[in-house]
Amino acid sequence: MAPALAANGVVNRPVTGRVSAVYSEVQNSRLDHALPLPSVLKGPFAVVDGPPSSAAGNPDEIAKLFPCLFGQPSAMLVPGDAKKLGSGQKLKIGVVLSGGQAPGGHNVISGIFDYLQDRCPGSTLYGFKGGPAGIMKCKYVVLTPEYIYPYRNQGGFDMIRSGRDKIETPEQFKQAEETAVKLDLDGLVVIGGDDSNTNACLLAENFRSKKLKTSVIGCPKTIDGDLKCKEVPVSFGFDTACKIYAEMIGNVMIDARSTGKYYHFVRLMGRAASHITLECALQTHPNITLIGEEVANKKLTLKNVTDYIADVICKRAELGYNYGVILIPEGLIDFIPEVQQLIAELNEILANDIVDEGGLWKKKLAPQSLQLFDLLPSAIQEQLMLERDPHGNVQVAKIETEKMLIQMVETELEQRKQQGSYKYKFNGQSHFFGYEGRCGLPSNFDSTYCYALGYGAGALLQSGKSGLISSVANLAAPVEEWTVGGTALTSLMDVERRHGKFKPVIKKAMVELDGAPFKKFASMREEWALKNRYISPGPIQFIGPSSDNVNHTLLLELGVEA
Amino acid sequence: MAPALAANGVVNRPVTGRVSAVYSEVQNSRLDHALPLPSVLKGPFAVVDGPPSSAAGNPDEIAKLFPCLFGQPSAMLVPGDAKKLGSGQKLKIGVVLSGGQAPGGHNVISGIFDYLQDRCPGSTLYGFKGGPAGIMKCKYVVLTPEYIYPYRNQGGFDMIRSGRDKIETPEQFKQAEETAVKLDLDGLVVIGGDDSNTNACLLAENFRSKKLKTSVIGCPKTIDGDLKCKEVPVSFGFDTACKIYAEMIGNVMIDARSTGKYYHFVRLMGRAASHITLECALQTHPNITLIGEEVANKKLTLKNVTDYIADVICKRAELGYNYGVILIPEGLIDFIPEVQQLIAELNEILANDIVDEGGLWKKKLAPQSLQLFDLLPSAIQEQLMLERDPHGNVQVAKIETEKMLIQMVETELEQRKQQGSYKYKFNGQSHFFGYEGRCGLPSNFDSTYCYALGYGAGALLQSGKSGLISSVANLAAPVEEWTVGGTALTSLMDVERRHGKFKPVIKKAMVELDGAPFKKFASMREEWALKNRYISPGPIQFIGPSSDNVNHTLLLELGVEA
Repeated sequence: MAPALAANGVVNRPVTGRVSAVYSEVQNSRLDHALPLPSVLKGPFAVVDGPPSSAAGNPDEIAKLFPCLFGQPSAMLVPGDAKKLGSGQKLKIGVVLSGGQAPGGHNVISGIFDYLQDRCPGSTLYGFKGGPAGIMKCKYVVLTPEYIYPYRNQGGFDMIRSGRDKIETPEQFKQAEETAVKLDLDGLVVIGGDDSNTNACLLAENFRSKKLKTSVIGCPKTIDGDLKCKEVPVSFGFDTACKIYAEMIGNVMIDARSTGKYYHFVRLMGRAASHITLECALQTHPNITLIGEEVANKKLTLKNVTDYIADVICKRAELGYNYGVILIPEGLIDFIPEVQQLIAELNEILANDIVDEGGLWKKKLAPQSLQLFDLLPSAIQEQLMLERDPHGNVQVAKIETEKMLIQMVETELEQRKQQGSYKYKFNGQSHFFGYEGRCGLPSNFDSTYCYALGYGAGALLQSGKSGLISSVANLAAPVEEWTVGGTALTSLMDVERRHGKFKPVIKKAMVELDGAPFKKFASMREEWALKNRYISPGPIQFIGPSSDNVNHTLLLELGVEA
Repeated sequence: MAPALAANGVVNRPVTGRVSAVYSEVQNSRLDHALPLPSVLKGPFAVVDGPPSSAAGNPDEIAKLFPCLFGQPSAMLVPGDAKKLGSGQKLKIGVVLSGGQAPGGHNVISGIFDYLQDRCPGSTLYGFKGGPAGIMKCKYVVLTPEYIYPYRNQGGFDMIRSGRDKIETPEQFKQAEETAVKLDLDGLVVIGGDDSNTNACLLAENFRSKKLKTSVIGCPKTIDGDLKCKEVPVSFGFDTACKIYAEMIGNVMIDARSTGKYYHFVRLMGRAASHITLECALQTHPNITLIGEEVANKKLTLKNVTDYIADVICKRAELGYNYGVILIPEGLIDFIPEVQQLIAELNEILANDIVDEGGLWKKKLAPQSLQLFDLLPSAIQEQLMLERDPHGNVQVAKIETEKMLIQMVETELEQRKQQGSYKYKFNGQSHFFGYEGRCGLPSNFDSTYCYALGYGAGALLQSGKSGLISSVANLAAPVEEWTVGGTALTSLMDVERRHGKFKPVIKKAMVELDGAPFKKFASMREEWALKNRYISPGPIQFIGPSSDNVNHTLLLELGVEA
């Protein structure tokens, strides 16, 4: 029986790299958490090429954009003769974190580093600071065991920080080349999302075309979960972030049930796709979940969405439940065609016309847009008129969708009350969960997965591969059986026409309405709406029950959970 | 080495009491978490009275208000002859949850129940439903082992729900008496905060004066941590709630450091006192922490607070840090005298005058109030003018203080920029953490503490005590050595004059500016402001490192942590 009152757990540790040397007991305990490797990475292995690849769309255009790399095969590691990799060589490798934070990024770097230590002793790993700008400005730190150790299994990107710059212009590519030459880089690992991996591939193509020896490998990072494909089953960080949000949602659910009088409207990060919202729904069973992709597919209007919520609230009231929890994806209004139309018209009017106090300007709106505008709560109308980005456009991201929906549902229910079809009191509470999930301590899954991604990236670089994204798969099996390889980034690409030119893009993976995760949700949501099937996942555990669980989306997509 | 991908942890358990029978793996694992008891509760014990008690203030008035109970001694359990307690008797006991949720309430009930099972077999425990209203309406459930088991160590108050009604009028006291007589109650346990325990004492006095046998025992509940005294070192729920908020704050800190461009303004629940904010500061080391009691003590204005924040931001910018984390207690503006004055004047004007569009009404404000009003961001001005409670008063609770401060700091920094004393870009992000913490899974500390509170309440009831609050102390020692007893509720009371009458109140325990927790914070805050000493506590763990830690406030108040 443990004493309930142990000494409090702040640990002062003489670390060198981390800005602050003060760790909590849990942070500290994670430093020595063991990171198992897939079997293929534990012994000698060879890299085997697959068949030639194509593109996700418009292969002719992709071929033109990537003359050196297009068509290259994906690679797979298999047990075999390591000599082919030229063991014994010393490598100079760079690594960069690109874009928003995701739990596990430090472990990717640890994986690369440990690979170099284990397989290419005497190698050097450069950490470019502050994202791609660090490459362009040649700002870096030489990573050492002492520098890296304090970040093992820790959240955040603060080891070398991240940044949102892109290497786009000829001058910027030139700067990157200069850095590659100056540091005599054999390889570069770009840890990022869809845009950053596209950028990584352009860089790989550029280096190859300039006959530089520097190869480039990508790693799939984003809590949003929208960078994935058959070979890359999940982007890292998604697992941890969803578990953190689900902990909060579960707590709010128990609160809703205990209090019996609030509807909690929870907006969740994830702008382009609704994977986070869907995953949190599968983990917690809320009464209502809005999935942007379905809203777009059904061409729903804001009024449709409001009515749907109000309908469920009315039905629940009849059953005696005047409380509930509603999940809303951050990007919801981007999925509603009429809102997009309204915003386009507003941008036009605000750029060219005078907005008079009397509201005469509104006559310039199309009838449907005017109707929608008048439906919106006044606070949202103001946000639409006032918040502008540097280009003069409405800042959709700043619109608090959860508060907008609360007000619209309130108005709708007030009308129903007057019509006699609703006779209860509606109390909405708004929440936004976002920043809390991006830098949490990585779950055991993300810790292990990221380490394997990094270790595998090291192997790909040693074998001279370029333009691949590190791919660890067979994730439903025990770690030992995970497969490790690299997928041709060009094979994930399509083109988009921008400013009259074709630009390569890795298409974001949206929630598939015929995919297993959505289908499971769709089959359950009526039950969740009217009965209370809340599940409170609790805080992420690192030891004991639940500590090795992974997210439902991945399991369902792998066909493990029916 | 565990496989990273275990089957996902949703457990279907055939439970009876809980509305939903679907538990997460962590919830499920908590059901059988062992709850150690203090040694004195494990063997035979006697209840020993202390010296006569007085009141926290105005003892003469308290004596008049509580003629039966005033002056009664507190009680302490000591190892001894259990026969004095009349072992073997069967008791009929009621229990009620009163007010807002706090993690651990279910364990208090489990403790009472287990006491009755262990010591008074054949007893009955009635759970009054929906708070004190359940007593008045005699709405209850008979608690059985099957009913209670699924709630052991679980968050929320949903076993019997809570409510905010009070038993105040003669009719309501009559209803309570009728219930006590109807159910032949030997005792009643009221689990609640300061108001609810005051109410419990009035009920105890009433029953005693009416010669009813029903005795009443209180239990200290509130996440706010403002119900405490020497004998009651902490209210339950505070420990868990603060740990949940600190997890989120720690994550946001790592995010701030990784991104390097945001100031996160985090408002934390806790309206009357700033204990939660102080505890979270001690756990996480933010750059700025506002403590309401200090703001009031120093008679700071909103401009002072804004300048303080802006000063730190400017100093940090000079050091190269354009990011940070700022903690704000929910009740901040209640502590600022000039804001209270402004609101009082606005209430008066809005009740009696016409508010003209042109703003002529503003001339009715005192000069200082007008100056403050003009200083406020327009959104806050609108909230002050529009949001009204049913009595026509400004709803201070709805004012998003964190957003207000962001806007005010932004304006201040803009001015400094024009003056040349600041030349960076300020990005504020707002957060409010509240509902997420009220219903989390109780920490090991709260689980054990609450079980002891309930078990001890059972002992007090069996010994016929009434008007005491269950008191478990010596909490710095191992659980075995915890002391168990009851403190006379009248000894915690003072009077307040309301509507010309004296009303008894248990004074809220505010943050003491000369207490150890505040002093430790004050001694560290300059370092935290300019250096980055962030600590990320991580998610609450139930097994392994940190799982038996308790909050800093309690440790410091007990003199354990220097």
